[in-house]
Amino acid sequence: MKDDALRYPGSRRIYVAGTIHPELKVAMREVEQHDSVFPDGSTEKNAPVRIYDCSGPWGDADYRGTVEQGLPALRAAWIAARKDVEKDADGSLKAADLAHPPTQREYALRGIITPEMEYVAIRENLGRMQAYQSVCDAFSQQSLCPADEVGTGMPRPSELEKQPGFSPESMTLRADLAYQHPAEPRPGNRIPAFYTPEFVRQEIAAGRALIPANINHPEAEPMIIGRNFLCKINANIGNSAISSGIEEEVEKLRWAIHWGSDTVMDLSTGKDIHKTREWILRNSPVPIGTVPIYQALEKCSGRVEHLSWPIFRDTLIEQAKQGVDYVTVHAALLQRFVPHTARRATGVVSRGGSIIAKWMMLHQEENFLYTHWDEVCDILATYDVAISIGDGLRPGSIADANDFAQLAELEVQGELTRRAWDKGVQVMNEGPGHVPLHLVPENMRKQLEWCYEAPFYTLGPLATDIAPGYDHITGALGGAQIAQRGCAMLCYVTRKEHLGLPDREDVREGVVTYKIAAHAADLAKGHPGAQLRDNALAKARFEFRWEDQFNLSLDPHRAREYHDITLPHANAKSAHFCSMCGPDFCAMKLTQEIRARENAEKTSNSGLAEKC
Amino acid sequence: MKDDALRYPGSRRIYVAGTIHPELKVAMREVEQHDSVFPDGSTEKNAPVRIYDCSGPWGDADYRGTVEQGLPALRAAWIAARKDVEKDADGSLKAADLAHPPTQREYALRGIITPEMEYVAIRENLGRMQAYQSVCDAFSQQSLCPADEVGTGMPRPSELEKQPGFSPESMTLRADLAYQHPAEPRPGNRIPAFYTPEFVRQEIAAGRALIPANINHPEAEPMIIGRNFLCKINANIGNSAISSGIEEEVEKLRWAIHWGSDTVMDLSTGKDIHKTREWILRNSPVPIGTVPIYQALEKCSGRVEHLSWPIFRDTLIEQAKQGVDYVTVHAALLQRFVPHTARRATGVVSRGGSIIAKWMMLHQEENFLYTHWDEVCDILATYDVAISIGDGLRPGSIADANDFAQLAELEVQGELTRRAWDKGVQVMNEGPGHVPLHLVPENMRKQLEWCYEAPFYTLGPLATDIAPGYDHITGALGGAQIAQRGCAMLCYVTRKEHLGLPDREDVREGVVTYKIAAHAADLAKGHPGAQLRDNALAKARFEFRWEDQFNLSLDPHRAREYHDITLPHANAKSAHFCSMCGPDFCAMKLTQEIRARENAEKTSNSGLAEKC
Repeated sequence: MKDDALRYPGSRRIYVAGTIHPELKVAMREVEQHDSVFPDGSTEKNAPVRIYDCSGPWGDADYRGTVEQGLPALRAAWIAARKDVEKDADGSLKAADLAHPPTQREYALRGIITPEMEYVAIRENLGRMQAYQSVCDAFSQQSLCPADEVGTGMPRPSELEKQPGFSPESMTLRADLAYQHPAEPRPGNRIPAFYTPEFVRQEIAAGRALIPANINHPEAEPMIIGRNFLCKINANIGNSAISSGIEEEVEKLRWAIHWGSDTVMDLSTGKDIHKTREWILRNSPVPIGTVPIYQALEKCSGRVEHLSWPIFRDTLIEQAKQGVDYVTVHAALLQRFVPHTARRATGVVSRGGSIIAKWMMLHQEENFLYTHWDEVCDILATYDVAISIGDGLRPGSIADANDFAQLAELEVQGELTRRAWDKGVQVMNEGPGHVPLHLVPENMRKQLEWCYEAPFYTLGPLATDIAPGYDHITGALGGAQIAQRGCAMLCYVTRKEHLGLPDREDVREGVVTYKIAAHAADLAKGHPGAQLRDNALAKARFEFRWEDQFNLSLDPHRAREYHDITLPHANAKSAHFCSMCGPDFCAMKLTQEIRARENAEKTSNSGLAEKC
Repeated sequence: MKDDALRYPGSRRIYVAGTIHPELKVAMREVEQHDSVFPDGSTEKNAPVRIYDCSGPWGDADYRGTVEQGLPALRAAWIAARKDVEKDADGSLKAADLAHPPTQREYALRGIITPEMEYVAIRENLGRMQAYQSVCDAFSQQSLCPADEVGTGMPRPSELEKQPGFSPESMTLRADLAYQHPAEPRPGNRIPAFYTPEFVRQEIAAGRALIPANINHPEAEPMIIGRNFLCKINANIGNSAISSGIEEEVEKLRWAIHWGSDTVMDLSTGKDIHKTREWILRNSPVPIGTVPIYQALEKCSGRVEHLSWPIFRDTLIEQAKQGVDYVTVHAALLQRFVPHTARRATGVVSRGGSIIAKWMMLHQEENFLYTHWDEVCDILATYDVAISIGDGLRPGSIADANDFAQLAELEVQGELTRRAWDKGVQVMNEGPGHVPLHLVPENMRKQLEWCYEAPFYTLGPLATDIAPGYDHITGALGGAQIAQRGCAMLCYVTRKEHLGLPDREDVREGVVTYKIAAHAADLAKGHPGAQLRDNALAKARFEFRWEDQFNLSLDPHRAREYHDITLPHANAKSAHFCSMCGPDFCAMKLTQEIRARENAEKTSNSGLAEKC
């Protein structure tokens, strides 16, 4: 892969120091902007825009490392300084004493702010550093309320107009482009005006958020998953039985995080699983998740009947020692739920779920992951591996959404969540799948209620079954709605879902589509910094700063490419018109004239406002 | 364009007769399905699936007409039979007596069911003809309730399990794939279990729906726009100053309706506007909309100051005589609202809105479309042209959403709606634009309240500003949510929006994306037939009937193409596995084994259910 393809134009990676932990270097991407040029020839500076950046050192033009070397061990010193781990015979780290496991949850409960916590606090503020430093002790929170009840009290404009002293200036217009509805309550969340390390600690201690950060994956930059933070997305990679090799998998990783994937799951099922994962981990600045039962099944040559707790346990330990940050374990799928899937439209569609279901049928025994849950949690606590409790009975079609089997497993996910928390383990819950839009809020509410507000991590959900080839979009429709109501992370679906394996362009399209869904939800949740980028891009668009519009977008390459297809000449990028209306007539150009005239008239004290 | 590209595989166009009007031949598309083949070798027939079809005669393999001939005049006899029109000097039809205008609204108010009304009733039932005929007199309606409060009373599965007699069979599982939640109330709509001509009439009489059907466009197949029907979508075509010719525009029309566009707006702004529109109308089986002020401005050589009521009036009449089915008129943008846009992030972004705003500034007069509203309505009533009251002040960015200017215009749209209804004119209201997801419900509620439940017709809305190149998706996110809450029609946005002019692939991608959003909303609204296609496709998927899965999808060509990239061999389409998990292990295959085993055990009376 050429490095050019992995660079964003007009921007650079920057690093911000911490306050509680001054040694922190929190990475962000900063997009430079051109000056505004007004019709009267005057100009105005536009501040650079800071953007959340998942690309790690790979996104830094000054970084000179190679895939063979692996990334620098960013967190090694932090982990060592806590003096709660020891080296195993094979050189990997493990807890020195499970009475105090080296997990972020344990520290949060003990009231300790780790460097990881301050790192994510700064990251979530999206570069609003001045504000961050001044309010580092503050802690504001908003009330819990339904997601879509914003602005119901808005009066009729004709009533407003009758009020004494009414004028355009009396309205709360946003000349400064600050957020329009700052005081309005938002969706079932507690979003602070500014993120502080203490807020992060409280959210982790409450179980509402987690920082997946295995002590054996020091290369990862800390990130947080929780509904009171930016909504995150995950991309899946992994060689299947049918295709791809190791180098290709590392390339896929870099490609996915370049576009903004916050975590990556390695779902490899073929040969060389261990070796592939090692390369991925050593080169990944984002948390890596896995589904260990896939590898356990490979060890049984694919024979489900040969699976057993010891084989799974050894696989889990092997992966934990390598540095896997979170694992999907389908422990909530109980034996008595299986008959409820027999009459479903699409039965069991989760791969892990069907493995466990088959194992229980063959052995006529309860799910060994459920019966060994405490031992699973002890292993995870030893390495600070977070648990992502699987949803093996997720619906595979609209017809099966929110049925008994799905909700029965969800209820058990709640029980297992509590038990994992008691062991100091960080937890999230996996969710569907295929869910029509009117059943999404119900699904989200039940998860919050039954799973004690543990972060929800859903696959889509896909809002319809009829669009194979476009399932990145059907999934984004459900994803935006569930994230708006509190889902903490969305697993992407590519347009090849249900049909084939994704290639590079499918991954790009999929990641960007889910960034859109997550960002739309962040705006709706009222994340305090989310709209800054929208505002900057809208201003650039309005002022015909084409390059800035491209550079501020989620996919600058594509924005430029589409523009250039219609207007390829370089001077079209400085022209005060666009291809939709042509050079003779442009709505935005006209508005600029209106604005200029309005300003001129205001200066001469005989403006349109007075005349009306 | 090759005709192959305009054919759907495995399906044919069929025609269904009416009951009240037996002469009707209501067009649908019917997809054949293969038999199910079960693991034990037994088979089962699968009924063909009927799909709403917008392609008109062009989608009928037996149709032999040409673009030069134009389409057959399907409605000519119906219009003539009503004896309420007369021929003008130029051969076009007009009302014989404006006291009883020849509009669908007028007939609905007089209690008369037109052929158009029965046509759409049959169409909306999606081929459920048996049921249709048996309930043709019935009229059921559901209560008005919030869109996202479905299923809140669902008990915990663990409580259900404690009930005496509980078993998998006691649950309301959907072996017949009927809709899962038939009895649950749905989103702010009154969706009947079956559509009847009388229901259609009542909805039109109440102003909640319209059938855009100019008496001079007899080629169009009747379709209905209203929130208690299937959500519709519109695609824009039109040569701009920069590109394209007449033949190309007819090709674009056929392409857009092939993919499912329910109406098409011709937004041409260059030369030959009249001639281009003539070709489009004579070849269009769907209603055609326009924005007459574009052509009026062309007549003034683009000089806004030269615009006047007489020029606009003559243009409106010219278009009405040609057969335009609905027109956007920006009459609700009042002079006193303009100053409220000066401090917006993105001012006025509607082309029509900025023309009117500029005209008002130059002339220091009230909007001539507002002051001549009664005359506008008289012209529209003369030809049964529906009015789409424009939203010239729609927000062009997240920052401007739901601001005073937007809502002030919306309130005036309500006033004009009433006045148009009083003239017998069918009405809908246009809406934004750029709106973050949490402000969408407020926008929808205000439109329903202030505009007396007239159908809402929105452009997107786009849920964020940061994704140029992907704005078909940002618009689908907002579109699905607003349609779910009652928006009747979505205007598509292509991925070239804000950047350039759409090509064929952009139109295909855009139309299919909005079909997804509209269909997702139909499921959420509880449209009684919408889920039949999901259920059929899910069943085909589960049973590895690959060809059926492709053929039932919104874009069969793409589904097949994506499948074949990974597994190109013909026998892969009959294989009981897919490329995601490979031949050795497949979740769906495993589930089929579980189901077979479950059935076998049930037969031998020693099933898993009893053991648990």
